[in-house]
Amino acid sequence: MVHKLSNDDVIYSFSRKNAPVLRVNSGDTVSIDTCDCFTDQIQSADQEVAAIDWNRINPATGPVYVEGASAGDLLKVTIDELEIGDQGVMVTGPDLGVMGHRLEEMESKIIPIRNGKAIFNEKLHLPLNPMIGVIGVAPEGEPVSCGTPGAHGGNMDTKHITQGATLYFPVFTEGALFALGDFHAAMGDGEVSVSGIEVPGRATVTLEVVKGFHSKFPVLINNEGVSLLVSAMTLDEAVKVATEEMIDLLLPFTDLSVSEMTMLMSAAGEAQISQVVDPLVTARFFVPQHILEALEIKLFS
Amino acid sequence: MVHKLSNDDVIYSFSRKNAPVLRVNSGDTVSIDTCDCFTDQIQSADQEVAAIDWNRINPATGPVYVEGASAGDLLKVTIDELEIGDQGVMVTGPDLGVMGHRLEEMESKIIPIRNGKAIFNEKLHLPLNPMIGVIGVAPEGEPVSCGTPGAHGGNMDTKHITQGATLYFPVFTEGALFALGDFHAAMGDGEVSVSGIEVPGRATVTLEVVKGFHSKFPVLINNEGVSLLVSAMTLDEAVKVATEEMIDLLLPFTDLSVSEMTMLMSAAGEAQISQVVDPLVTARFFVPQHILEALEIKLFS
Repeated sequence: MVHKLSNDDVIYSFSRKNAPVLRVNSGDTVSIDTCDCFTDQIQSADQEVAAIDWNRINPATGPVYVEGASAGDLLKVTIDELEIGDQGVMVTGPDLGVMGHRLEEMESKIIPIRNGKAIFNEKLHLPLNPMIGVIGVAPEGEPVSCGTPGAHGGNMDTKHITQGATLYFPVFTEGALFALGDFHAAMGDGEVSVSGIEVPGRATVTLEVVKGFHSKFPVLINNEGVSLLVSAMTLDEAVKVATEEMIDLLLPFTDLSVSEMTMLMSAAGEAQISQVVDPLVTARFFVPQHILEALEIKLFS
Repeated sequence: MVHKLSNDDVIYSFSRKNAPVLRVNSGDTVSIDTCDCFTDQIQSADQEVAAIDWNRINPATGPVYVEGASAGDLLKVTIDELEIGDQGVMVTGPDLGVMGHRLEEMESKIIPIRNGKAIFNEKLHLPLNPMIGVIGVAPEGEPVSCGTPGAHGGNMDTKHITQGATLYFPVFTEGALFALGDFHAAMGDGEVSVSGIEVPGRATVTLEVVKGFHSKFPVLINNEGVSLLVSAMTLDEAVKVATEEMIDLLLPFTDLSVSEMTMLMSAAGEAQISQVVDPLVTARFFVPQHILEALEIKLFS
């Protein structure tokens, strides 16, 4: 049986105090409808973007209470399917993104999704990489706005959070309180304008409680390898923490010294940028699958 | 005719005051032999790495005076061929790289290069991505150590600087004074231990003066697309400058507004990390070839 959640049930911050809108067992699958990051408020090119309600930004559908999840566990989230709507929107403007100092007014752009492409204009038909911007669980302490990423996940804006990927989140509270939203039809690393191609959509995810393993930060596994995602005030800090945490994650599986593992990560691992435009920025450290296989590492199982 | 340079002629800093060891015409090809970044001082596993001469680090072979190159021009460098030696070395240690705070002594590791793989140990045979760590021209002002990157190039430690790539450097002085060295048999983005798999080698490059175009920073073009490389005190700063410079580089070829170009870069461009361990860190902003083609952009020609 697949549970269903409509996009009527949204949160604007991740919080242990949010009341669950659905309770599921570990191993259950949920089909979750989402609004775009503007709660679908921008529907046409002539709409005044400055006039939208900025209190309704980055809604995440949920939260879902997963039976048996307790603080210290991991929540395994498999993204079985990711569907997106047929119209996207981008925005940028003063004080937003990397170019905010050069822009004088808020602008939005409607981008139709057609034949597997994002139609930026007549010339530019961009390839899609549908992804989930906001995904996570209730954080340890105070509520965190869905616009901000952290150890609980949230607005990580990471292009690898897509169909086929599996995420592991640290659980901070009973039931984990999982939610997601903010899909992008396409986005490049950095998300430099402050938005991807924002779209509503539907994600089908399977939620499982994993006992006996821990991670301080979200971990993403796909066919390419494993990424550890860290959000911080600066990219420099996020990269350093992500690198060290990845080394500490893999080290117990090997007979390598810290020095040797650091050299291996230098030769074959990758420090990568997810986004540089949210209240905290997000970086990831990636290790390719062939390294995991050579070291016979199977994470969290 | 292919000019030849041996690795006897090395510099340890890029400087307008360096005497050229070779003069070539624009369009000439030069075959350049290089030492590894330790000037080939570490040859065996039992060698005390702390005992090497640290004044002989990151040698670059050259400089080459290119006739007709003047301040304000670009130097186009096509990497026709890149060959590497059959033994590499990695190092890490206290206060070096991302993990320096966890390490108590300098360590080195000899890594044989065999059958197209880097033999890290019995289990780990790593794929090669031979690349040039140090490459550039004399800077505008004071000499810059070959260990430090900048607008003149230098120690950019960027894995895409490899066979088949073309680089464009801003020229700051008569003859440009081009040099290169510090090859890696493999390195991942970040270079987190402070070294790649350091190897000696030979690069065959074609050097051309390009008049009438300008770039403040090195630009790399390959089959995948175009990257603009910026080095700065922080990754955050390097990414911001690289993004803005890329937008300003492409904008004149299009009828897009600054807002629209920023959105396009957000949807389809990529902020990427080259290295986080040198005295300045290096980031790049990348735009894929299909975007350049859709916009009918041909850079620097």
